[in-house]
Amino acid sequence: MTHFTSIDQLRTACRDLPAPDDTSAEQARDRQGILTKPPGSLGKLEELAVWLASWQGREKPKLDRVEVFVFAGSHGVTNRGVSAFPAEVTAQMVANFEHGGAAINQLARQAGANLTVIPLDIDQPTVDFTIAPAMDEQAFLDAVNIGYEAVKDRPDLVVLGEMGIGNTTVAAALSCALLGGEGADWVGRGTGVDDEGLQRKASAVDDAKTCHGNALSDPLEALRRVGGRELAAMFGAILAARHAQVPVLLDGFVSTAAALPLAKLDPNGLAHTWAAHVSAEAGHRRLLDALQMKPLLDLGMRLGEASGACLAVNILRGAIACHNGMATFAEAGVSDG
Amino acid sequence: MTHFTSIDQLRTACRDLPAPDDTSAEQARDRQGILTKPPGSLGKLEELAVWLASWQGREKPKLDRVEVFVFAGSHGVTNRGVSAFPAEVTAQMVANFEHGGAAINQLARQAGANLTVIPLDIDQPTVDFTIAPAMDEQAFLDAVNIGYEAVKDRPDLVVLGEMGIGNTTVAAALSCALLGGEGADWVGRGTGVDDEGLQRKASAVDDAKTCHGNALSDPLEALRRVGGRELAAMFGAILAARHAQVPVLLDGFVSTAAALPLAKLDPNGLAHTWAAHVSAEAGHRRLLDALQMKPLLDLGMRLGEASGACLAVNILRGAIACHNGMATFAEAGVSDG
Repeated sequence: MTHFTSIDQLRTACRDLPAPDDTSAEQARDRQGILTKPPGSLGKLEELAVWLASWQGREKPKLDRVEVFVFAGSHGVTNRGVSAFPAEVTAQMVANFEHGGAAINQLARQAGANLTVIPLDIDQPTVDFTIAPAMDEQAFLDAVNIGYEAVKDRPDLVVLGEMGIGNTTVAAALSCALLGGEGADWVGRGTGVDDEGLQRKASAVDDAKTCHGNALSDPLEALRRVGGRELAAMFGAILAARHAQVPVLLDGFVSTAAALPLAKLDPNGLAHTWAAHVSAEAGHRRLLDALQMKPLLDLGMRLGEASGACLAVNILRGAIACHNGMATFAEAGVSDG
Repeated sequence: MTHFTSIDQLRTACRDLPAPDDTSAEQARDRQGILTKPPGSLGKLEELAVWLASWQGREKPKLDRVEVFVFAGSHGVTNRGVSAFPAEVTAQMVANFEHGGAAINQLARQAGANLTVIPLDIDQPTVDFTIAPAMDEQAFLDAVNIGYEAVKDRPDLVVLGEMGIGNTTVAAALSCALLGGEGADWVGRGTGVDDEGLQRKASAVDDAKTCHGNALSDPLEALRRVGGRELAAMFGAILAARHAQVPVLLDGFVSTAAALPLAKLDPNGLAHTWAAHVSAEAGHRRLLDALQMKPLLDLGMRLGEASGACLAVNILRGAIACHNGMATFAEAGVSDG
């Protein structure tokens, strides 16, 4: 896992990102125009088919190999009482993933996707970011590299999710660092904290901003200082997918926050990603709005684990089933209005 | 097809509708509370699992047999230039369904559902309802009976959709008749009419109200007078599903309008139905709001054919995959906060 050996090298890799394949996009768009339906009547399904075509580089996209990665990390900031669940639940849930008992196990199977769970030193929490950087440079690069290397052999779609008690506070801190506002603007109930817990979350974010100051204006430094290992790994996976021109479905608040630094480094940095859903966690909608991302689903979910993103895989499957399988007006002998 | 031989008999069948099974609902709700996730974190997926349990009468619902019915009808009101497509497209699209070339063929397969297409005298358009009732009593009852009899042997889920050039004008007329307002409040672009077409749609609805007057205050009379065969058949199927305690997914504006008379006859008449999506057709959102129905999906679709409802089947599959397959806190040894 030595893809990036320095932050400068990583920063360079975030420049000159590959563009989508316009030819495939245009072919797909033309095809949508001759299928037996009123133009535009499949709404987002049409956009999704064209988007998948543009990144896969084929007029008729496929979803034969869908890879779900769930990265897990532990967070020093849990010391500040920011979660309704104890920190040891992270390891317990990783075991639950491995035994097939979690929501994501059922949803990945239902989506016809391969699930890989990648725990990141979960017995070694990051440093409490209200007093010092969460990760030193090596720990940060290690996590980014693990995520980067997870994306192999150009899958048809990558789906990203996470597990980590305390990580909605991490996502709030990172969003606040890169987009402004106060802690209270970005924190939410997470797994179900009470009013005092919510206040502690807001204070932790505000304290992090005070502690790190101007260093947070650099997206990669912000990710290292107030992020966490699973966020750094998701960032690495998103970057790897972009380099390989693989489309990505983001899940909830935490995975979208992990993507945010790439958007700050390049305004088109997230063109290969789609927000699968908007979470019930309040900060997520604010973050999606800032990124001008329109989520596919709004089902009041707030579990993480890639659960919302896995549900959206079947929307994508529906989109390409129509795109690839429908007859044209000419083929079906239907008058085209 | 002689289930109902008079409108009075049909009206009686709309009274004293079966209730959901509260015991199964409570068992399902209790189960949701002990699965390895923060309570409520699966959002709508939790509500859907409990809803399916309550109608199927089992703690762990299943979706082994999902029946999609697409009813097709022809409408005299197309004479008034209310559609962007010529009336013969209804028959052409029925042929396309039979050859497997339409969106619904792809989406039903993708949803693991059985598709049955039921054309209703499509070579005999209903009467133009701006000048006389669309159907006489026998034609109306025939269509209701066909829909009613289609729901056989208690499937796990019924999914309803339609095809019929001109039928967004029909749905607008029925909604306007039973919920008030003017034609312009309920009509939309349908398959893509221009401004003049939109004006013709609004006028057709207003003329229908003038023509039929007070007779439209009776929900069944409204369905007969300004409805269409495919709407009457969907109404019959929704009623049959209720009698058999089978949950139903409604599709877009037209199928929701077909359900509306049952809500007017009994305020809980649609408790066994769920709005799968909200269509881009403007009247649909207004209708869902009036029915206090919260759609699962909002993807800008406006095709009909049960296309949006079929997409939502996989959301339901995800819901029961989690509900039935997840480990409990005790089974997984996870601390429950």
